[in-house]
Amino acid sequence: MSLVVVGTVAFDKISTPFGQSEKIVGGAASYISLSASQFYKDIKLVSVIGDDFPKDFLDTMAAQGVDLAGLQIKEGEKSFFWEGKYHYDLNTRDTLDTQLNVLADFVPALPDSYRNCDFLMLGNLAPSVQLSVLQQLEKRPKLVVLDTMNFWMDCALEELKEVISQVDVITINDEEARQLSGQYSLVKAARIILDMGPKAIVIKKGENGALLIDSENMFFAPAMPLEEVMDPTGAGDTFAGGFIGYLAHSRDISFENMKRAVVLGSAMASFSVERFGTERLIGLKESEIDHRIQLFVDLVDFDILLVDE
Amino acid sequence: MSLVVVGTVAFDKISTPFGQSEKIVGGAASYISLSASQFYKDIKLVSVIGDDFPKDFLDTMAAQGVDLAGLQIKEGEKSFFWEGKYHYDLNTRDTLDTQLNVLADFVPALPDSYRNCDFLMLGNLAPSVQLSVLQQLEKRPKLVVLDTMNFWMDCALEELKEVISQVDVITINDEEARQLSGQYSLVKAARIILDMGPKAIVIKKGENGALLIDSENMFFAPAMPLEEVMDPTGAGDTFAGGFIGYLAHSRDISFENMKRAVVLGSAMASFSVERFGTERLIGLKESEIDHRIQLFVDLVDFDILLVDE
Repeated sequence: MSLVVVGTVAFDKISTPFGQSEKIVGGAASYISLSASQFYKDIKLVSVIGDDFPKDFLDTMAAQGVDLAGLQIKEGEKSFFWEGKYHYDLNTRDTLDTQLNVLADFVPALPDSYRNCDFLMLGNLAPSVQLSVLQQLEKRPKLVVLDTMNFWMDCALEELKEVISQVDVITINDEEARQLSGQYSLVKAARIILDMGPKAIVIKKGENGALLIDSENMFFAPAMPLEEVMDPTGAGDTFAGGFIGYLAHSRDISFENMKRAVVLGSAMASFSVERFGTERLIGLKESEIDHRIQLFVDLVDFDILLVDE
Repeated sequence: MSLVVVGTVAFDKISTPFGQSEKIVGGAASYISLSASQFYKDIKLVSVIGDDFPKDFLDTMAAQGVDLAGLQIKEGEKSFFWEGKYHYDLNTRDTLDTQLNVLADFVPALPDSYRNCDFLMLGNLAPSVQLSVLQQLEKRPKLVVLDTMNFWMDCALEELKEVISQVDVITINDEEARQLSGQYSLVKAARIILDMGPKAIVIKKGENGALLIDSENMFFAPAMPLEEVMDPTGAGDTFAGGFIGYLAHSRDISFENMKRAVVLGSAMASFSVERFGTERLIGLKESEIDHRIQLFVDLVDFDILLVDE
């Protein structure tokens, strides 16, 4: 009945036009787990860190109901570190430093209690690592969601395609959808990627929202226009966490319910970007989430009569 | 009871990644008038052309119910001409040639029958020309909508601010909203621009939809994800035409009704980009528009229970 989350738990150092962080906790699996934990409590983490990682963050994760049995802690080694600087438009960024550290030779090892999970979130990692996780499962989960990025399309495309062929939902951004499909039109791009295996695709467009497409349907959710966007790092992961967390909670993977999951993922991402790192996701109240969801409902609500009325 | 449309009627030559046009009819007022005429029949055009302009296009406009009494035809002169090439992402373009011709010394002259209009659409033109139109009115229209662009912010900012102070709704794109306000956040940008005079602002985001904001409300309409986008030229003008055409038809300028107008404007723009120039707007059937509107309704439709359920 659990949700297994695979991805990095790491350090980031981030500079945006609106501020600068110290070395803070980040990583795809951190954002995914914290976001999903707002909707679902049986979350099992698969990741790797060094012995330099702050214990209080791990305690926070555990307090949110995240099982850390699958988190490898490498004595004498350092955690993955990324430093980046966002441009004025927040849609593009330069990597200033990447230190793979423990990630360089990460071999995920799923505890027995993880192997019959119902929901699996494969956060952005090398496709070979994602494949290794799939191979360790005892049964096919009810739903597997994959997040990936252009880096793996450039340097591990065949392995990535193998992963894509085994998942139910893929989340990528618009440029990545265009790169993977070779099509400019996102409608055509989605169709080609669905032909690779997934039943549905979520095309993330950052501040321009997200598109959910399956073979028959299309749904669009905007990003919430915000007064303050401090740090877009982890927004896509936070989205994915809210998306699969809600699906695991509701145990309904119909397109209609995935639409709700997209809205909840967008709501969670809209919180994440308001502060550096995972800060805004910790201690977030249900009433805050409900209020944000209501803003989403209002943002797109209209009623219309057709011209032929 | 009429809608006066001010703007260019001109020639374009357009190259996009998906094709190339001959010298074809374009111009802001052409797109605005044809789009508005789908919803409202008492449209009066203010513009200028040379004697090189095709009579059959003028006949088409007249057949759509567009009054051409305010269209100056300059004997022995040539119409405004623009040639441009769009980049792969369709959001950016290079101007290859601009020939102002009749536009160089255009002084709009409103026929008497235009001066007590109820709706006024000031399409993109020099702010001095837009001001001249406002000065020729006998009474304040029920609604004045202004479209402009970054070019005028760069070279005629004070006159532009004077126009902005006199209109009810301003439509600009996201980059222009940021430039005009000096704010990155579109929410903050909108607030600053509303302080300049308008009651509402439409921030156009191209393939990423449009935001409608007044002092109390915010509404977002996506652009329709399309299989084929041939030519984005005139999409913003087509949007504006559908927007004000519907408002003139319904005679209701409440925020609730402006939301509908934004959806109808988006629907019209989604047709326009499917072909080069104004081709797709001519002979468009009500049933086609109704079908497209239904796609918009479906695209953003979701129902959700709050977390606290």
